[in-house]
Amino acid sequence: MSRTISISQYLPILRWGRYYDKAKLIDDSMAAVIVAIMLVPQALALALVAGLPPQVGLYASIFGLAIYALFGTSNTLSVGPVAVLSLMTAAALAKLGISDPSQLVAAAMTLAFLSGVFLLLLGLMRLGFMANFLSHPVISAFITASAILIGLSQVQHLLGTTSSGQNIIELLASLGGSMDEINWITVSLGLASIAIIVWCRTGLASLLTKMGLGGRLVTSISRSGPVIVALLTGVLCYVFRLDQQGVQLLGVVPAGLPGLTVPDFSLGLIRDLFWSAVLLSIIGFVESVSVAQTLAAKRREQIELDQELIGLGAANIAVSFSGGFPVCGGFSRSVVNFDAGAATPAAGLMTAVLIACVALMFMPILYWLPKVALASIILVAVYPLLDFSALGKSWQYSKADFVAVSITLFLTLLVGVEIGIASGVLASILMHLYKTSQPHVAVIGRVAGTEHFRNVERHDVETFDNILSIRIDESLYFANTRFLEELIFSLMAKKPKLEHVILMCTAVNAVDMSALQTLEKINRTLSEIGIKLHLSEVKGPIMDKLIKTTLFANLSGSNYLSHNLAVEDLKDHELPLSGL
Amino acid sequence: MSRTISISQYLPILRWGRYYDKAKLIDDSMAAVIVAIMLVPQALALALVAGLPPQVGLYASIFGLAIYALFGTSNTLSVGPVAVLSLMTAAALAKLGISDPSQLVAAAMTLAFLSGVFLLLLGLMRLGFMANFLSHPVISAFITASAILIGLSQVQHLLGTTSSGQNIIELLASLGGSMDEINWITVSLGLASIAIIVWCRTGLASLLTKMGLGGRLVTSISRSGPVIVALLTGVLCYVFRLDQQGVQLLGVVPAGLPGLTVPDFSLGLIRDLFWSAVLLSIIGFVESVSVAQTLAAKRREQIELDQELIGLGAANIAVSFSGGFPVCGGFSRSVVNFDAGAATPAAGLMTAVLIACVALMFMPILYWLPKVALASIILVAVYPLLDFSALGKSWQYSKADFVAVSITLFLTLLVGVEIGIASGVLASILMHLYKTSQPHVAVIGRVAGTEHFRNVERHDVETFDNILSIRIDESLYFANTRFLEELIFSLMAKKPKLEHVILMCTAVNAVDMSALQTLEKINRTLSEIGIKLHLSEVKGPIMDKLIKTTLFANLSGSNYLSHNLAVEDLKDHELPLSGL
Repeated sequence: MSRTISISQYLPILRWGRYYDKAKLIDDSMAAVIVAIMLVPQALALALVAGLPPQVGLYASIFGLAIYALFGTSNTLSVGPVAVLSLMTAAALAKLGISDPSQLVAAAMTLAFLSGVFLLLLGLMRLGFMANFLSHPVISAFITASAILIGLSQVQHLLGTTSSGQNIIELLASLGGSMDEINWITVSLGLASIAIIVWCRTGLASLLTKMGLGGRLVTSISRSGPVIVALLTGVLCYVFRLDQQGVQLLGVVPAGLPGLTVPDFSLGLIRDLFWSAVLLSIIGFVESVSVAQTLAAKRREQIELDQELIGLGAANIAVSFSGGFPVCGGFSRSVVNFDAGAATPAAGLMTAVLIACVALMFMPILYWLPKVALASIILVAVYPLLDFSALGKSWQYSKADFVAVSITLFLTLLVGVEIGIASGVLASILMHLYKTSQPHVAVIGRVAGTEHFRNVERHDVETFDNILSIRIDESLYFANTRFLEELIFSLMAKKPKLEHVILMCTAVNAVDMSALQTLEKINRTLSEIGIKLHLSEVKGPIMDKLIKTTLFANLSGSNYLSHNLAVEDLKDHELPLSGL
Repeated sequence: MSRTISISQYLPILRWGRYYDKAKLIDDSMAAVIVAIMLVPQALALALVAGLPPQVGLYASIFGLAIYALFGTSNTLSVGPVAVLSLMTAAALAKLGISDPSQLVAAAMTLAFLSGVFLLLLGLMRLGFMANFLSHPVISAFITASAILIGLSQVQHLLGTTSSGQNIIELLASLGGSMDEINWITVSLGLASIAIIVWCRTGLASLLTKMGLGGRLVTSISRSGPVIVALLTGVLCYVFRLDQQGVQLLGVVPAGLPGLTVPDFSLGLIRDLFWSAVLLSIIGFVESVSVAQTLAAKRREQIELDQELIGLGAANIAVSFSGGFPVCGGFSRSVVNFDAGAATPAAGLMTAVLIACVALMFMPILYWLPKVALASIILVAVYPLLDFSALGKSWQYSKADFVAVSITLFLTLLVGVEIGIASGVLASILMHLYKTSQPHVAVIGRVAGTEHFRNVERHDVETFDNILSIRIDESLYFANTRFLEELIFSLMAKKPKLEHVILMCTAVNAVDMSALQTLEKINRTLSEIGIKLHLSEVKGPIMDKLIKTTLFANLSGSNYLSHNLAVEDLKDHELPLSGL
């Protein structure tokens, strides 16, 4: 790939914009309508999850979608508020100990700004690989735990009570203390709402399909459950004045588009939110890329990781100047966008326009929307995120991953999202280092009559008193050099007639400085007591590097192309050397 | 290895003690005398480096040596104060902001206690592998930077001025500000002392060898430079009352053995010193094991890593109850012990007895010892620790190691020892993850007429329009799964006729949960667009694990024993499938 920098590299809209035509316009506008129907109630609800006024969710959607469309490389990723980021925003804001809504919004804007700048910098510095340090099972455990916490945080609205907390203990204790406030009208509205949304997605969808309706129409109707619920419950509340029966309404939501505002740049706030922004950015990026990559591959399209960072960064910065909170690509929404036929990022742009219309025109109606409807929408949305299979699968497949998964799941639930994800990342890195620090190695012998060498413990093979053959099934680097040293010296102590140690390097993909120095030390120590060190079957790229080092200049033994050549060459020396 | 626990497992003295005889006694006592001569002035000087009264160095030596002899597995490791740990102790104590000597000693004892408990726990839990996370070049850079800081901290005594500081900037600024205090008699004494010590080691040693004297005698005389210097300068100060000329004397050193005391267990102090103790323990352990392992291998003996942790832990705990400060195995001293013929840990026990005698009888004489003599001893001792070769070597051999080395070296010098080593460890882990997150992979084709597959970019090979063959030269784990996914999807986008992707896994030593899930996702995504995923040449241990997973149950393609078999099998499908 050429490294020449052109504007279109950083502004993908200039690439796809040139080939935009009517067919794409139709596809994109259809998708935009369906996504907008789905997004509006979700955006309002997710703002409440983050502990912010509902309109903030719409503002974040408008600018998140629009700016990502200019800079992003995915044709189908739908950017906006997502459940996990809303929860992480709530956790970050809770640490600040403020309760005034306008101060909370200001802090959320700063969080989005920090997150945007961080993502943008990673993208410009081409450091997208940092997202790789999150292992799949850790993310999956984190998302499951987050979904539980989000679900629990919504139970208060479902019961008509009030609760708060950043972890399962606080939430349950808080809910337990408010049980005498349960409002049964609210509970009934909630259960009915959940039933309607679920039925739209399943029963209604298959009914419509059976009736012979087209795919897109089915998709849009089946996804309109939340809107139907919002309308129905709103009308019920208005007609029967259910607020007087204790049903909590959304209340006054200011109409109009967000004004351009500047986030709070005070140093203390930036310091308090810095690490939250970093964690939140990485989670958001990993989630976005994961869905964008899957959807792109289905159409044999490609996304560019570093440009995705720039796109998400720009979206968050834009959001931070327009009264929003952190955004990223949402999974279910992007899948809907994809299924609905979105052809280019223009679909996102149109969704943004539609949501802006909602913000301009329909805000007064929202007064009558009960909070329990929004809670039902969230509960149905986060339910599919629950996935405990990582726990069982990792237990079966890899105990190291199981440790990381358990730590992430339980610390997120019991302590909170930030400690949870940070510990998970740390645990997976340490477990990886631990595993590779004790690599699989085998003392090998020759299968009689062949040139094949196998583990002496598993096979009946021939060995020689003066030769120690070791195969190392791992790259050599600082975490396992001591293991290698200890292994060779301990095996050596058991072979009194030893003259040659041969390391078979077929599976050694890398040799770092520590390993190089250890090999030099082993070579020196062995040669002082009259034992030669040999290498066999070293890979080309490794050999290219080793050949220039002092290890090769001082190697007491030789470097053999095949292990059998080495053994053939060296076993002759079993004859008394003095006899020569 | 049997896991039955016996007392002798944890108390190696019961093993070697049974076979102790007169020959070993003679060897051990000779070595003990030589090491004691070397250790006494060093121990006094190192206590000053740590910012503690000189006798603390002797106390630490007595109990460090004696207790390690009971629990340690190395026959030649000489435990006691060492330069780098003294510097780290000074840094840890400086953070406390106390200046009263008795309080400093109490804090040093607590530090030794925490370090001892930490090492002991690691040993009992068999967690010695944690020391592996320190890469060689990082340790070497850290020791070089520490040697510079120690050397600079001694310049004040060499000039007769006063200075202080925890990094090169503070030390140089402090020295610069005290230049008008230079005492030229002190400078002369210092330069003469350095000259004598260096001459004893080099000129005198070769002179004696030429005169036909035996090895041990030469070793002991050549190593007695510090004692000669201490005696000479002490006599000069006494005779000419040089203290009245501004030469700083050691002053009153309390005679007698240390009393049994209890370290300060206050929670605040423990919290303040905790991380310092952890860092110091790991550095001490790595240093000890490194020298013990080299010396043991030279005699085809073995040490046990986890028991070494127990030995060093016990030594530090003992030291903490007898007014000492953190200890570990010293490099040069252990080499001298080895060369002098130490046969068993009893040599260390005897050295301890000899030093106890010094503490009992010779303390009053030390009053006249000038500080400049001790500074000279330290300067000569730390000079060989300077080794900048890691910088150049890593630049040539591995840029990733170079980054870690530079960070360690410069942060240790410019900020201090603790930040320096912690950043170095972090940098080497991150660089390792970075490297393996972008593994070497090759699209491969067949060398015509053979069964060999080679990189298409390097060799003239045959490829097939419907097949994409990829060889991965790295274990698959969370840090490189995204790379793999991106690679396959981007290569796929370039081959419109693609039907089969074959991954050649000869160099894949591990597949973790993230990689497994990524392979499942790739398999699913490819099969949705009609492309099959195949594996070839998967290693036995990996296959054992994969065979039980859903990946294998759902794999759209097959698993081939050889890559050639796969290509032979699949290339036929190039014929139009509809023709069947």
